[in-house]
Amino acid sequence: MIVVASISPDERLAIEDLYAEYAAVLDDQRFEEWPDLFTDDCTYKIVPRENYDRGLPLATLAFESKGMLRDRVYGVTQTLFHEPYYQRHLVSGFLMRRLTGDAYAVRANYLVVRTKAGALSELYSAGRYADVVVRDAGRLLFKEKLCIFDSELIPNSMIYPL
Amino acid sequence: MIVVASISPDERLAIEDLYAEYAAVLDDQRFEEWPDLFTDDCTYKIVPRENYDRGLPLATLAFESKGMLRDRVYGVTQTLFHEPYYQRHLVSGFLMRRLTGDAYAVRANYLVVRTKAGALSELYSAGRYADVVVRDAGRLLFKEKLCIFDSELIPNSMIYPL
Amino acid sequence: MIVVASISPDERLAIEDLYAEYAAVLDDQRFEEWPDLFTDDCTYKIVPRENYDRGLPLATLAFESKGMLRDRVYGVTQTLFHEPYYQRHLVSGFLMRRLTGDAYAVRANYLVVRTKAGALSELYSAGRYADVVVRDAGRLLFKEKLCIFDSELIPNSMIYPL
Repeated sequence: MIVVASISPDERLAIEDLYAEYAAVLDDQRFEEWPDLFTDDCTYKIVPRENYDRGLPLATLAFESKGMLRDRVYGVTQTLFHEPYYQRHLVSGFLMRRLTGDAYAVRANYLVVRTKAGALSELYSAGRYADVVVRDAGRLLFKEKLCIFDSELIPNSMIYPL
Repeated sequence: MIVVASISPDERLAIEDLYAEYAAVLDDQRFEEWPDLFTDDCTYKIVPRENYDRGLPLATLAFESKGMLRDRVYGVTQTLFHEPYYQRHLVSGFLMRRLTGDAYAVRANYLVVRTKAGALSELYSAGRYADVVVRDAGRLLFKEKLCIFDSELIPNSMIYPL
Repeated sequence: MIVVASISPDERLAIEDLYAEYAAVLDDQRFEEWPDLFTDDCTYKIVPRENYDRGLPLATLAFESKGMLRDRVYGVTQTLFHEPYYQRHLVSGFLMRRLTGDAYAVRANYLVVRTKAGALSELYSAGRYADVVVRDAGRLLFKEKLCIFDSELIPNSMIYPL
């Protein structure tokens, strides 16, 4: 069981704010702001649950620095051919644990709803985040973000970050 | 980026309570209580995201006082012919910012699940709220509530408030 | 209306932690840990909303002690023949009210997404929890958990707890 003792309400709500900001940036399609929610030496991975549970290293997407996140944003906004869609993040069930003075392990469940032009909203991805959040120059940022999605099916158009 | 500094945990949780109460009132179908969550001079609008993002004024629904909300409730409960359905609201990703001493800009993501008689639950509407909440005679109320929904398709039976 | 006064931010967030832990235990399929989130004399029921609203006592599942929860876990993990699936809980809209010094009435909306092997994630159950949470030997536990689901259809494979 994850023990959350010794994280103050202020700290906890500030961490929840980071997740709300993350969702708002992606759902508003302000993709250029997305890398700024990460540390320079961050890792970002999207992994199927089955692989994760079996300890298999294969990831659907894996980026290992803020620079790689910026490359991805360039791809998403400039070069990747894709049918655009809206995303909507719902995130709940936060469990936090302090790792060091200014670092926190955070897990939470997420649901992403996708809406394509001219179509009804549909369930796109459900899973959980298993992240490391750190305080860097006074600001909370993701040092590690791991998106573990439940469906073994890899949607053919996972273009935007989860 | 929305800065939430200077809103205390108590204030923040009280605002989240208002949203929980709002969801409970609608999901319990206690429609008569719904206008009481608004100020007398409130505005309530449901707007497709595409219109909102382009600055187009067209709204699917627009009410401009608590009296109009009461009229809507009368319609929903007494006169509007419709197939009844249950709603279930999931709301997360709160971002708050103080506007004045007792007024707050609040945004949050929402998901409404609909269940018709004899049918499975289905995804009905996803989007976000962009609201103004004020303290009025000691109680938090909606002064403005804007529901921006992602799907361009307007469901043929948007009877109940989102 | 449910009044939440006199519950401190610390208490409230600790109660939300219990729900997050509950979701994590079930979604991780750590079923053996599930009964430990309840008191010895707990009740756990899953009830269709229509029955609940009409005051009908019929429940889809009803357990009346931690021992019965353990029996259920044994069934789920050892004897019940079923096609396995993943669950993902989203819970929001907490409304809390103190009943006595160390007991709280808690309601919240839930959404459970189900993912079967080789299939996309799908909406499985939406509804609300109407629970009693107590502090027992310093730990928050469920004394009563009532899952009221919106759909009148009873899924043919409600194997895991909601």
